[in-house]
Amino acid sequence: MSFTLEDLEARIAVRAAASPEESYTAKLLARGVAKCAQKLGEEATEAVIAAVTGDKPELVKEAADVLYHLTVVLRAADVPLAQVMAELETRTAQSGLAEKAARKPE
Amino acid sequence: MSFTLEDLEARIAVRAAASPEESYTAKLLARGVAKCAQKLGEEATEAVIAAVTGDKPELVKEAADVLYHLTVVLRAADVPLAQVMAELETRTAQSGLAEKAARKPE
Amino acid sequence: MSFTLEDLEARIAVRAAASPEESYTAKLLARGVAKCAQKLGEEATEAVIAAVTGDKPELVKEAADVLYHLTVVLRAADVPLAQVMAELETRTAQSGLAEKAARKPE
Amino acid sequence: MSFTLEDLEARIAVRAAASPEESYTAKLLARGVAKCAQKLGEEATEAVIAAVTGDKPELVKEAADVLYHLTVVLRAADVPLAQVMAELETRTAQSGLAEKAARKPE
Repeated sequence: MSFTLEDLEARIAVRAAASPEESYTAKLLARGVAKCAQKLGEEATEAVIAAVTGDKPELVKEAADVLYHLTVVLRAADVPLAQVMAELETRTAQSGLAEKAARKPE
Repeated sequence: MSFTLEDLEARIAVRAAASPEESYTAKLLARGVAKCAQKLGEEATEAVIAAVTGDKPELVKEAADVLYHLTVVLRAADVPLAQVMAELETRTAQSGLAEKAARKPE
Repeated sequence: MSFTLEDLEARIAVRAAASPEESYTAKLLARGVAKCAQKLGEEATEAVIAAVTGDKPELVKEAADVLYHLTVVLRAADVPLAQVMAELETRTAQSGLAEKAARKPE
Repeated sequence: MSFTLEDLEARIAVRAAASPEESYTAKLLARGVAKCAQKLGEEATEAVIAAVTGDKPELVKEAADVLYHLTVVLRAADVPLAQVMAELETRTAQSGLAEKAARKPE
């Protein structure tokens, strides 16, 4: 079985119960949703730069950071990951043509 | 079985083979990695705003958009999702104290 | 005399008084500060990509977009540009060593 | 006379000539354009959060940080600020209707 975002969400839940002195995750959550969101924004910028510069090993790390911090933001905002995955499943289940119609023009 | 990022990666692979006229995903990939990365950055900003304003239904949508566009970026950059998930698994397997030591001070 | 951010702020004030049907600026302001902030985030990402890819003509345009949308955000948030410029002047007046001490370690 | 971005550009030019040990600006420039761009992205995210949460004193600081790091990025990319200001002047000189026509639909 591969590691999934659900597994990550479960690990973050365990960490969240630790003390902020012991766990980076607990410390970040203790600082509130705005701080968690700020970190998500920072990691997204770093992933963008890694992608654009073609630095694959760096992109692996930054993409992992984006997933980690997004999952932390969901917890801080009290939104279950399952809702996000259900949204993703529904949205990507449509055919290509339906997909295109559902997207707002840019 | 819940929908996973691996399932999403598989759907994106199918879409990538469609014509850009038929599929948003194919069209985005055809525009190159920088455009895909730009969309990732945009969606991350929208997720940040949804989180900070406490708009949960919007956060569900924007988080789904971040996951979708991150997975598209990985494909555009030719990086397998499995590498990112393995990185996440390794990194979050450490104890809280080890986790803290491994993070750079802010 | 060169064009300054103060001149831009004045032009935006004129536009803000137009109808949203006539002016992009008025329309953006009518959508509220979160929408203005979202556009700032998007343009910042585009400036980052232009800088990293070394596309100078694109960076000129995206930097102009960042300055424009930042000034719109300030107006939407009812913050005078003069306060921002005063902050910049004070902060950059310090010597290099003081500057370094004032910055938080990364 | 108010402090302008041109004044800021001049101060950054002075700092750039200092040693990285003495000056934050020199140190940042020494790390290259991608690192400067990353900082711009981070500060933009912080400005977005300050704007959306309605924290005016924080927005003053973060807007100053955006302007500072944008000017550093321009220097790192060897793009004169004057080109950006000229672009801004030209673009915002048009009437509201022309302005609207020139913007791509969203």
